[in-house]
Amino acid sequence: MTYPPVLIGQSVAAIDTPALVIDLDAMEANLQAMADFTREHGILLRPHAKMHKSATLAKLQIAAGAVGVCVQKTAEAEALAAGGVNDIYISNEVIAPHKLKRVVALARTLAERGGQLALAVDSLHGIAQLALAVQGQSVRIRVLVEIDVGHGRCGVQPGATAVPLVNAIAEHSTMLFGGLQAYQGRAQHLRTAVEREAAVAQVVTDVQRTITALQDAGHSVPLVTGAGSGTFGLETASGIYGELQAGSYLFMDRDYASNQAAPGQPRFQHALFLKSQVMSLCATHAVVDAGHKSHAIDSGLPAVHGLPLDYANGGDEHGQLRPQQPGGLLPALGDTVWLIPGHCDPTVNLHNVMIGVRGGLQNGVVEQLIRVDSRGALT
Amino acid sequence: MTYPPVLIGQSVAAIDTPALVIDLDAMEANLQAMADFTREHGILLRPHAKMHKSATLAKLQIAAGAVGVCVQKTAEAEALAAGGVNDIYISNEVIAPHKLKRVVALARTLAERGGQLALAVDSLHGIAQLALAVQGQSVRIRVLVEIDVGHGRCGVQPGATAVPLVNAIAEHSTMLFGGLQAYQGRAQHLRTAVEREAAVAQVVTDVQRTITALQDAGHSVPLVTGAGSGTFGLETASGIYGELQAGSYLFMDRDYASNQAAPGQPRFQHALFLKSQVMSLCATHAVVDAGHKSHAIDSGLPAVHGLPLDYANGGDEHGQLRPQQPGGLLPALGDTVWLIPGHCDPTVNLHNVMIGVRGGLQNGVVEQLIRVDSRGALT
Repeated sequence: MTYPPVLIGQSVAAIDTPALVIDLDAMEANLQAMADFTREHGILLRPHAKMHKSATLAKLQIAAGAVGVCVQKTAEAEALAAGGVNDIYISNEVIAPHKLKRVVALARTLAERGGQLALAVDSLHGIAQLALAVQGQSVRIRVLVEIDVGHGRCGVQPGATAVPLVNAIAEHSTMLFGGLQAYQGRAQHLRTAVEREAAVAQVVTDVQRTITALQDAGHSVPLVTGAGSGTFGLETASGIYGELQAGSYLFMDRDYASNQAAPGQPRFQHALFLKSQVMSLCATHAVVDAGHKSHAIDSGLPAVHGLPLDYANGGDEHGQLRPQQPGGLLPALGDTVWLIPGHCDPTVNLHNVMIGVRGGLQNGVVEQLIRVDSRGALT
Repeated sequence: MTYPPVLIGQSVAAIDTPALVIDLDAMEANLQAMADFTREHGILLRPHAKMHKSATLAKLQIAAGAVGVCVQKTAEAEALAAGGVNDIYISNEVIAPHKLKRVVALARTLAERGGQLALAVDSLHGIAQLALAVQGQSVRIRVLVEIDVGHGRCGVQPGATAVPLVNAIAEHSTMLFGGLQAYQGRAQHLRTAVEREAAVAQVVTDVQRTITALQDAGHSVPLVTGAGSGTFGLETASGIYGELQAGSYLFMDRDYASNQAAPGQPRFQHALFLKSQVMSLCATHAVVDAGHKSHAIDSGLPAVHGLPLDYANGGDEHGQLRPQQPGGLLPALGDTVWLIPGHCDPTVNLHNVMIGVRGGLQNGVVEQLIRVDSRGALT
């Protein structure tokens, strides 16, 4: 009884609404721009697959030069591994013993395929739990220590606080110290380039003094990994980071596009759109069939693509469109309206499929149905 | 590779996190309280299944006396019908010709089973499109005219504006005028009982003058349907409403619970919880593994159940807990924390399954895994 939203080869006009549509031409331009950037700067790219949640797109990124992907959840790693992704880093802490058993089982699977699994830690407790789970399992897990470089969420404080954790990792032959996880999520969304530069300068100082403390304790730091689509040019320029975790660059969203241009970074195009339809109309506003069950609102409401209209939240299943200027025109009943989601990651997570369109939103053709493999993979 | 979050018969402690858990004892008390209320007041109940999205729970409500369910989307209706629900009202407008074909096909299926499908309209265009879709299809569709009773979204203005629509419906032997759809969503969430009473008094006036206009034009109005969990006692007391659409009463959420008690309504219990785990801890805060990919934030952040902690949004996959009082205790690494979602409807839509627990959150046992059948059923 589940109807596909469209069939491959049909026109854009045939896509049932609301539906998440990828402009493949724009996405491939973004893919190429990032591949060019990382190659030119000699830095590794491990894009965050929590954004697109798709094994197909993860493999596309790896084919374009990425070393693997990041995820936030064990279940995401499992879903992407099932879809053929072999190098996965869970850039987040896992504490629960039964979940760590899954992590270890997946690490073995990936190692047998010639790939690898890595995991972040920020506590001695987490390292001890991982040690119990991996004991006798004939696999070695790459472990990165997360430091809090200003995001204020997970991670130990920068500096000498990281030393006991790396000491503990070094005590276990089942673990390999992989380096530092240092991600400043807040810096990504600061509006001006000056603010982002100041935030990343602090990040670099924090990472540097942690490296110094670890070196003083006799540990070398093989890698610093982090950065996102809002600042990766700055982390790259620092010379300290060896790997970038940017994910949103592939699709872009309204929030990232609101940032002022980041010096030293390529500009990316909007590649992710929500197709909606006007299904009610009155004198003051039009109502589209896309509410916050079809796009996330944590980073603000969607923009209306190509029309001078503002989107107001109409609840779970509706959006209200009003002219930006008094007397402005409203669309007609039945019209298609393209929305640009405020935040791509949790928007993708609401959908089972993304529809890849070739040749533009107006007259394009559906080329690909891309499954959201790790949608709802929460654990 | 998809691991079930828990197995039936296991303890609550075994539920992997984050996971959506139903306290079955509390849910059944809510179910019974609403059944008692509607029976005592002689009013029909057609709960909104956009809330739980589950055929199992829809059938439970029907077994307890509900006449059927509402949904907002054609795809939701299809998913619930596939799960054995036979009486479904799409309380929303459908405009697209290909979607109306699906509506008609589903109406035939339900009629063959002895059930029925109904649909809301608010435009002559919508009625004309439905007429084209249903022509020659040997089924009659019950059509309700939506009026805007203060919600400011869909619906024609109250009063004589509804007359041409009912005239148009009456011209088609394939349609049956089912009455008025009159839902004031904003009234549900007004904090004080006095504000809600004033809003519903206006609703009742608007409905009454629409009925009068239709009667003057020679139409009888077989039913007025609407109301939600925040105000249904008021619509019931009006004597004009014949059917209630309340849905959230079954689970309750933090937002509804923040309302002052509604005079003339039973009190409902929290029955929906998000089980989460502390996976990072520092001096100032604890971090749980549940962010806004596991609960909706459109109506505010979740409450922390039974602990003097405030939840702050930590992004897609994390939540930050801080003591409500300076010097208050934080939970330990690995501790379970139960969250009460801000808004149940879009929270359920993030999950593939709800875990039904018997005997309480502390020592209960998993009795049922309830599939979210219409999760992501957006079209």
